[in-house]
Amino acid sequence: MQPLKLTLALDMMGGDHGPQSTIPAAVAALQEFPNLYLTLCGDQPLLEHALQLAGALSHPRIRFLHSDDQVSMADKPAVALRNKRNSSMRHALDLVEQGQVQACVSAGNTGALIAMAHYVLKMLNGVERPALVSALPSCHGKPVYMLDLGATVNCDADTLFQFAMMGAVMAEEVMGLNSPKVALLNMGEEEIKGSDQIKRAAQLLSQCNELNYIGYIEGNDIFSGKADVIVCDGFVGNVALKTCEGVAKLILKRAQQSIKQRPLAALLGWLFKPAIKSLYQGMNPDHYNGASLIGLRGIVVKSHGNATKDAFLSAIRQAVREVERQVPAKIKDRLEQVLIDKA
Amino acid sequence: MQPLKLTLALDMMGGDHGPQSTIPAAVAALQEFPNLYLTLCGDQPLLEHALQLAGALSHPRIRFLHSDDQVSMADKPAVALRNKRNSSMRHALDLVEQGQVQACVSAGNTGALIAMAHYVLKMLNGVERPALVSALPSCHGKPVYMLDLGATVNCDADTLFQFAMMGAVMAEEVMGLNSPKVALLNMGEEEIKGSDQIKRAAQLLSQCNELNYIGYIEGNDIFSGKADVIVCDGFVGNVALKTCEGVAKLILKRAQQSIKQRPLAALLGWLFKPAIKSLYQGMNPDHYNGASLIGLRGIVVKSHGNATKDAFLSAIRQAVREVERQVPAKIKDRLEQVLIDKA
Repeated sequence: MQPLKLTLALDMMGGDHGPQSTIPAAVAALQEFPNLYLTLCGDQPLLEHALQLAGALSHPRIRFLHSDDQVSMADKPAVALRNKRNSSMRHALDLVEQGQVQACVSAGNTGALIAMAHYVLKMLNGVERPALVSALPSCHGKPVYMLDLGATVNCDADTLFQFAMMGAVMAEEVMGLNSPKVALLNMGEEEIKGSDQIKRAAQLLSQCNELNYIGYIEGNDIFSGKADVIVCDGFVGNVALKTCEGVAKLILKRAQQSIKQRPLAALLGWLFKPAIKSLYQGMNPDHYNGASLIGLRGIVVKSHGNATKDAFLSAIRQAVREVERQVPAKIKDRLEQVLIDKA
Repeated sequence: MQPLKLTLALDMMGGDHGPQSTIPAAVAALQEFPNLYLTLCGDQPLLEHALQLAGALSHPRIRFLHSDDQVSMADKPAVALRNKRNSSMRHALDLVEQGQVQACVSAGNTGALIAMAHYVLKMLNGVERPALVSALPSCHGKPVYMLDLGATVNCDADTLFQFAMMGAVMAEEVMGLNSPKVALLNMGEEEIKGSDQIKRAAQLLSQCNELNYIGYIEGNDIFSGKADVIVCDGFVGNVALKTCEGVAKLILKRAQQSIKQRPLAALLGWLFKPAIKSLYQGMNPDHYNGASLIGLRGIVVKSHGNATKDAFLSAIRQAVREVERQVPAKIKDRLEQVLIDKA
């Protein structure tokens, strides 16, 4: 059987490195997936030149959509939404909306991408707000899905409930987990546990048969493997994720210092360099995995602004998996099922 | 000049280890501070027996306040407040309120301690809610004060403003920092930056001449040394702090795995054990430093529930510093100054 044709639009101009990262990632993705067709959105002459240098100018599975403009990392979301209709980011989203590609990937300005994607693609029925979800590492080796990582600052109980559903679908469909354990991120003390929204979301979740809801989880258990899906509002998720990055930096710094302080160890420090580097990368998941913007009528994967070739390639792979597993349709089905069961 | 007489009440029964940790810590503190007088609150026969084993039964600077009851780690705050009036925790707080001691230290149930301390000691004029503050490590070596770590879940702008003031006083008085840099913890995206409370708190802080307010900071900069005082609501602070603990555990696990995978490194793994252990401890600040409950008319230091002798001793030292620097009076003065300037 011929594998399904996969079509993606890539925002080639986004991120700190632009085509320097996105071109080699695109070329590598085409090699990896023989059924992948790419539409490269961006400054076409520039992209053609970069492709020529990479020896892939007339690749049969590459198309271009020339964009005069691009969204900068400093653009405010509302301004980008209003003024950057001819940007590579907007073009990539438009292609998804028009059904010309199955998904898009961008390493650009997160706030602008969320605002544009929300406007262009619209929400799925039954979902009020979009969420950014990413797979984090865990002590047990298998990843943990955490959402929202910053798309929706203030979440009411219904929104948290919808995020729990969407996260479970991601864990099932993209990771192949059976009945993933879903938890709400909360603080530790029993009586004063969390806000009213969280308490009400906990009620909704415990009454829902479609989910394996296991209750509250605290920050120290995010990576312990207790839960497969961890749900919180975008503010808390963003702070938690970025705090991980801060801790990883601090530990790296400390490890370097303690290696320096131990002369024998210093001689052997080179032995640990790869281990420390891989640790650091593992603890910076949003640098190295794509985060998916879910809840929309289309697939959008956000690669880190500082994405290297490997990071952007990893975001392309994530988009491919979501296309293959038809994530938005599965989220829609699941939410409809819940509504039917409630009725 | 004779050094000032220092008087502390210790809740000897709190924490997972009770007198097993608190007795040796008390004995060590008496050795360290020749001007320190301790009132040990708890089961007197049990404490006397433990002191006898430690060779310090008739120590001239120890008094007892016998408590029939104790607050357990599982007690709900409201229940502890109502029913545990004869507990060692409550007795220690009562002694502070009655002016018989200058401060108290407990490793007991955090929620119960906050509720009881709030009820017994009352808030300082001008402060609406208490905050838990702790000194975290940073890349630059000097500690960072972060608050609130879980005392007040929902904070309005005024509360965040008061926390900023209190944190600055702690950094100045306890750490001796001159004009400490104060930041609000927020998420990254410009336009959608934070909740309304945070935006309004930012306004209040930027209009205040008594503070060196430097703006927003993100989670990845908590430990970078950009700010000396980091302000957030208790929910976010609690999640961030506990997430640090989770990351530290994950990194420890990963480091162990990567040492195992590298045979030559495995032979030398013992060299790194102390470094990794100290890293882990450094990243678990609430295990190893006391957290101060501030905004009250008295000094209360919370040691971690799982406190060892060293951790409880460190909390006693923290209480001593706050007594010496008269932290509550300084907070009161600062807040009054702000109110006068506003008027």
